[in-house]
Amino acid sequence: MNIQEIIAKKRDRQRLTKEEIAYFIQGYTKGEIGDEQAAALVMAIYLNGMDEEEITDLTMEMAYSGDVLDLSRFGTVVDKHSTGGIGDKVTLILMPTIAALGVPVAKMSGRGLGYTGGTIDKLESIPGYQTGIAVEDFIQNVEKIGISLIGQTLNLAPADKKLYALRDTISCTESIPLIASSIMSKKIAAGASKIVLDVTCGSGAFMKKKEDAIALAKEMNQIGKLAKKETVCVLTNMEEPLGKAVGNSLEVIEAIEALNGKMESDVEAVVTTLGAYMLKLAGKGNDIQANQQEILSCIQSGKALKKFKELVANQGGNVSYIENPNQFPKAEVILEVQAMQTGYVQEVKAEEIGRISMLLGAGRKRKEDPIKPEVGIVLEKKVGDFVKEKEVLATIHAADWESAEKAKQEIQKIDRIVSEKVEKQPTILGIVTDEK
Amino acid sequence: MNIQEIIAKKRDRQRLTKEEIAYFIQGYTKGEIGDEQAAALVMAIYLNGMDEEEITDLTMEMAYSGDVLDLSRFGTVVDKHSTGGIGDKVTLILMPTIAALGVPVAKMSGRGLGYTGGTIDKLESIPGYQTGIAVEDFIQNVEKIGISLIGQTLNLAPADKKLYALRDTISCTESIPLIASSIMSKKIAAGASKIVLDVTCGSGAFMKKKEDAIALAKEMNQIGKLAKKETVCVLTNMEEPLGKAVGNSLEVIEAIEALNGKMESDVEAVVTTLGAYMLKLAGKGNDIQANQQEILSCIQSGKALKKFKELVANQGGNVSYIENPNQFPKAEVILEVQAMQTGYVQEVKAEEIGRISMLLGAGRKRKEDPIKPEVGIVLEKKVGDFVKEKEVLATIHAADWESAEKAKQEIQKIDRIVSEKVEKQPTILGIVTDEK
Repeated sequence: MNIQEIIAKKRDRQRLTKEEIAYFIQGYTKGEIGDEQAAALVMAIYLNGMDEEEITDLTMEMAYSGDVLDLSRFGTVVDKHSTGGIGDKVTLILMPTIAALGVPVAKMSGRGLGYTGGTIDKLESIPGYQTGIAVEDFIQNVEKIGISLIGQTLNLAPADKKLYALRDTISCTESIPLIASSIMSKKIAAGASKIVLDVTCGSGAFMKKKEDAIALAKEMNQIGKLAKKETVCVLTNMEEPLGKAVGNSLEVIEAIEALNGKMESDVEAVVTTLGAYMLKLAGKGNDIQANQQEILSCIQSGKALKKFKELVANQGGNVSYIENPNQFPKAEVILEVQAMQTGYVQEVKAEEIGRISMLLGAGRKRKEDPIKPEVGIVLEKKVGDFVKEKEVLATIHAADWESAEKAKQEIQKIDRIVSEKVEKQPTILGIVTDEK
Repeated sequence: MNIQEIIAKKRDRQRLTKEEIAYFIQGYTKGEIGDEQAAALVMAIYLNGMDEEEITDLTMEMAYSGDVLDLSRFGTVVDKHSTGGIGDKVTLILMPTIAALGVPVAKMSGRGLGYTGGTIDKLESIPGYQTGIAVEDFIQNVEKIGISLIGQTLNLAPADKKLYALRDTISCTESIPLIASSIMSKKIAAGASKIVLDVTCGSGAFMKKKEDAIALAKEMNQIGKLAKKETVCVLTNMEEPLGKAVGNSLEVIEAIEALNGKMESDVEAVVTTLGAYMLKLAGKGNDIQANQQEILSCIQSGKALKKFKELVANQGGNVSYIENPNQFPKAEVILEVQAMQTGYVQEVKAEEIGRISMLLGAGRKRKEDPIKPEVGIVLEKKVGDFVKEKEVLATIHAADWESAEKAKQEIQKIDRIVSEKVEKQPTILGIVTDEK
């Protein structure tokens, strides 16, 4: 077997065997296969495709290319993952809730790259919270209180990291099979036995069009099926940001409010839907509506917030911030954006809000860039809301006046207010499971 | 402009502009564009193709990526090139003939890589012959005697060299647009104003199938047309080796015999056909048959041999070897291969004869391998010839008994003699010009 033959096969639209895919991934991870050979093969895969079995083989090889977290001591571990969005604080709300309902949560999350911080960046805005603890402590935390949320301290799916970086340089990111196997390989390496995926769709998501989001969901579903990691995909709307806050500590504060029972309706829809399927996969009941109700009740009873406080305390975080979010450091400048006219909000483009919040310092352009935990945007009005002239549309939290003013102008530029009534957009766009 | 956008365009089957192709070739030559990006783009070109204009733009950019030989002082310089074959000594016979007929010959040839030596390797088997002379001396030689044949002393088409090496590692050699632009870029960089191409076809050629050879010829013809370098392609048979000898000094000896008027019929067909089109492109007459006759007469008159001797003398070679080829060093072992049965020779596979002669030391596997000038194979019988049992089929010229015996066994193995009469194969398979 050699890599030229493997490239030639995919070039000629033939399917690759499990052994050939293993040869490629192992050789590429070790550096025995060059970037130029991987690039040629990736372009051939992009153009000629892969069938479900090939994609699953690719996923499993990438998953097993480095460390694989063994969570089998916890029985069925249901992981949750989002394909990315703006204002997504779902993990912070949902995972403590699930843990409070007796489902073990042992989750390694990534940092954000791009418009907003990742879950780890958000958690780190809580003073003292340790995201880089040792794996043994991570496991111990889950054993002790049923939940731990940390960063990727293990070398998970290094082949995926290498291929992902390569794809970016050769214009091969937007390949559904490659996106699907990248996501699934990381989840499998992180020890998931079952997976609920939030497949976002819209301007602020990787998948702009619904048909692409559905295709990605189906692909991941198939991989899950073949890899025996039962997978449910929830398609969610990412035309506008999720909830009100975009920014790291701002989103933590919104999550705390949600755990206190004051949850934005779109956030609630995502939390309860994802949660209901997580409970189902965890064997806690097949009735989705009943499960959704259980998630809500758990939050309303205060149990979820209690679990979140336990989590924070257990990882060294200062719980008093959770009890009194006013303690979170405020941004230097807080500037209101007022409506220029009376009417209905027609559009709050998630992509633009993300871009503006990154410019404020809430996200990073490059891996090594620092982020400012306290900056961001809080949206007071969402699509479909009625607003009067001069009423506050959004609040900008900035490090200085210059960036605040700039963000204000940009938001006013993209703001669309119309006189005709605008319908609220649905949050949940569909469910992709094996059962259908 | 950036390379990712260019890759994405070709990935999406869009055509690339002249500027985009220039950006790629210049950036890649300078090392600003990585091998992995070039690899992805090459695979996309392989799979999605390029139109005639794109291929011509690619060719011209590669041609001008390094030194370009300016031969304009000689007026119309007609270059000749073969896409590669076994036993191809045509340049050694044809170029002195053309020069003797008053057409300037200023030719930079390559070394062989693969089964047999290149023209430069063959010339170097003449003691004293200098192939690495300075460009000024090369030009002076052409001015003085009308001909010079040297190696590639200039940095011709470095982009092509880099891309060619890359294509080999990523299974993208067999792309007709890429082969065509590679060949044409080197010819244009070497100063050709018009080009006659010997497009070989058969087991010993790069193009195994006639339809591929025709496609390649048409592609090169189109490039020549768009690049204003009039090009004629002669399709020739390379199922069996050309002429009798395969090996460096053995082929020089056969060339000398040919220049003495004893030319194998297949060699004669190629020499006169290529030569006739060269004369035509040089403006020496449009009647191909008359031109062919002129080539033959020039050889028979001894003028071509005289020019060859002038060439050799002028480049420091020992002319007495040309006058008396018996002086060429003989191989240590000369072993005859006899026919195992009586009948007609049905097949003398050029590829196999090439492979066996390489094993004897006549070709090189790697660029840095030395070659043995005196070893090789002389075919006494060709396809269609009648042979009696025990009659000599071929003579092996080897460095030792072991390799000689091995070669003998291999030749006997591939040798096909049948009882039914076998037709001689045609040598010239077609002509591709703009006129048709």
